[in-house]
Amino acid sequence: MKLSSYLELVAKQMDGMTNKYFNNSSGELVKASAHLLAAGGKRLRPAAVLLSADAIRKGKSLDVIPAAFALELAHTFTLVHDDIIDGDKYRRGVLTVHNNWDIPTGILAGDALYSKAFEFIQQANADEKAKVDAILMLARACYDICEGQYLDMSFEKRNDVSEKEYIDMATKKTGVLTAAAAGIGAKLAGGDDNLVNALYKFGLNCGIASQIQDDLIDLYAKTEDSGKDRASDLREGKQTIISIKARKHGIDLSPYRRDLSENEIDSVIKILENAGVIEEVRKIATDLVDDNYHLLDALHPSPEQQLLKDIGTYVITRNF
Amino acid sequence: MKLSSYLELVAKQMDGMTNKYFNNSSGELVKASAHLLAAGGKRLRPAAVLLSADAIRKGKSLDVIPAAFALELAHTFTLVHDDIIDGDKYRRGVLTVHNNWDIPTGILAGDALYSKAFEFIQQANADEKAKVDAILMLARACYDICEGQYLDMSFEKRNDVSEKEYIDMATKKTGVLTAAAAGIGAKLAGGDDNLVNALYKFGLNCGIASQIQDDLIDLYAKTEDSGKDRASDLREGKQTIISIKARKHGIDLSPYRRDLSENEIDSVIKILENAGVIEEVRKIATDLVDDNYHLLDALHPSPEQQLLKDIGTYVITRNF
Repeated sequence: MKLSSYLELVAKQMDGMTNKYFNNSSGELVKASAHLLAAGGKRLRPAAVLLSADAIRKGKSLDVIPAAFALELAHTFTLVHDDIIDGDKYRRGVLTVHNNWDIPTGILAGDALYSKAFEFIQQANADEKAKVDAILMLARACYDICEGQYLDMSFEKRNDVSEKEYIDMATKKTGVLTAAAAGIGAKLAGGDDNLVNALYKFGLNCGIASQIQDDLIDLYAKTEDSGKDRASDLREGKQTIISIKARKHGIDLSPYRRDLSENEIDSVIKILENAGVIEEVRKIATDLVDDNYHLLDALHPSPEQQLLKDIGTYVITRNF
Repeated sequence: MKLSSYLELVAKQMDGMTNKYFNNSSGELVKASAHLLAAGGKRLRPAAVLLSADAIRKGKSLDVIPAAFALELAHTFTLVHDDIIDGDKYRRGVLTVHNNWDIPTGILAGDALYSKAFEFIQQANADEKAKVDAILMLARACYDICEGQYLDMSFEKRNDVSEKEYIDMATKKTGVLTAAAAGIGAKLAGGDDNLVNALYKFGLNCGIASQIQDDLIDLYAKTEDSGKDRASDLREGKQTIISIKARKHGIDLSPYRRDLSENEIDSVIKILENAGVIEEVRKIATDLVDDNYHLLDALHPSPEQQLLKDIGTYVITRNF
């Protein structure tokens, strides 16, 4: 099966659960909580839960569907709160929750989603000890996300962020939840510590690579393709892996902290490419994904193992 | 032992854990998370966890200390977010988190505290199934708190809130967490469903009675005793159990939606007392606490059973 088809199936499953458990008629807070959930998303985290479970033991994904939904709920919780923190107006083509309602509703909708994540994860059909371990993995990941988001905020006041600090931020902000997704699927399916750790590490690599890819997309992708404002990182002088690497090469990006034409963006890209910055950035992401092939060899060959590998490839080749 | 002495011991235990696990040197987000935790509070929820556990089986409190801390963390999480939502500047004699830092930090500190609550609750020394049940109780309580806070917000735009709606709000906003505290202590200590349910209901009654007592304190307590602004509910025209009962008696409190002198507040009290409003309000709280004596008879007589009864008495006799 192609990854895109698999992700479509997962999306349908998650949409079905959203409709069932976040019924619009249950009041305004439920409506606000369901708003972003219903607006789509790539569904990579629930897919990682389900694929990991099946890769450990075929058919186990049926037992962990509530955990897959829990990961999507937790992910959405972090998005709803991050949108308030970053003052973002749109997400997934719809108004952000605090923008469509207000900040108090956004805070409470996020908290409600996070609470529901713990309600759902324990509904998985699994050994009780495995459930407790899975819950711990989720709680730790979400704690780290808070730290990651805080680090990202603190970067805004600085222009000397190191590569190590960036990777630490990316690990916490995006790595740990994909890691927890894959690890939780493996744990609930009865995987031993080696397999759980391998899948956790796989998810971590995917998450960090994905953050790097986001930085590249911001620079390269035309607004009509990505649905996002092109080169907003440059304009805002954001500390990304690209700007950090550029600084190392002595390239000053501060003159580009202003509105830029498409031609100007293209010429910045040319400078960065000629200096080898882009190649270095891509290499970090590629190395992470290459490491995944090795990690996933701990699993028996199966269509699910292949789909997990495909997720790694997907996160560094997507352009939106 | 007197309840006040017991609560002091619990406070010391919680302060010790705060110092140990929320070390100031671990960065600004940890500092912000520890801010309200370290500022005190009544510690009724951790006390309820510990007393329930010991009431079920003497000595069990030692096994559930991390769960007691988890309840205090979850409670503090709700306070930090509520302070943002309500725009409150002070709490427990210190600046609120978002006021001392900023709203993004307040949101993240709350999220971090909530995440840590799930990390700690599973550290209790208990049967794995009991842990999963306890985690579910905590998650459900926190979901209900979001609903309760949302209801409370929606009351601000209305002047026709019914007594039933008020009790529903109080149940969700303050009842369920005390309920979860007592229920979780009982569950982790190996209590059977009857005992867990009795203690859960006990906590629920205490929480609702406490919310009613808060409404009375707002009206009666002098600022120098309560540390709070006297009669702020009157001034803001808030829907409280007092204003709802007053409306039933045909008393119009809207002329008091303004700055009031102590004498004016005293004369409003006289009107409410003469009409029997205050007696009716006190009776709701007293009935809830009386019900507790009956519920706690399910337990073997013990000093802990007595201390739990004392908590009921305390919540409706305190004046701050």
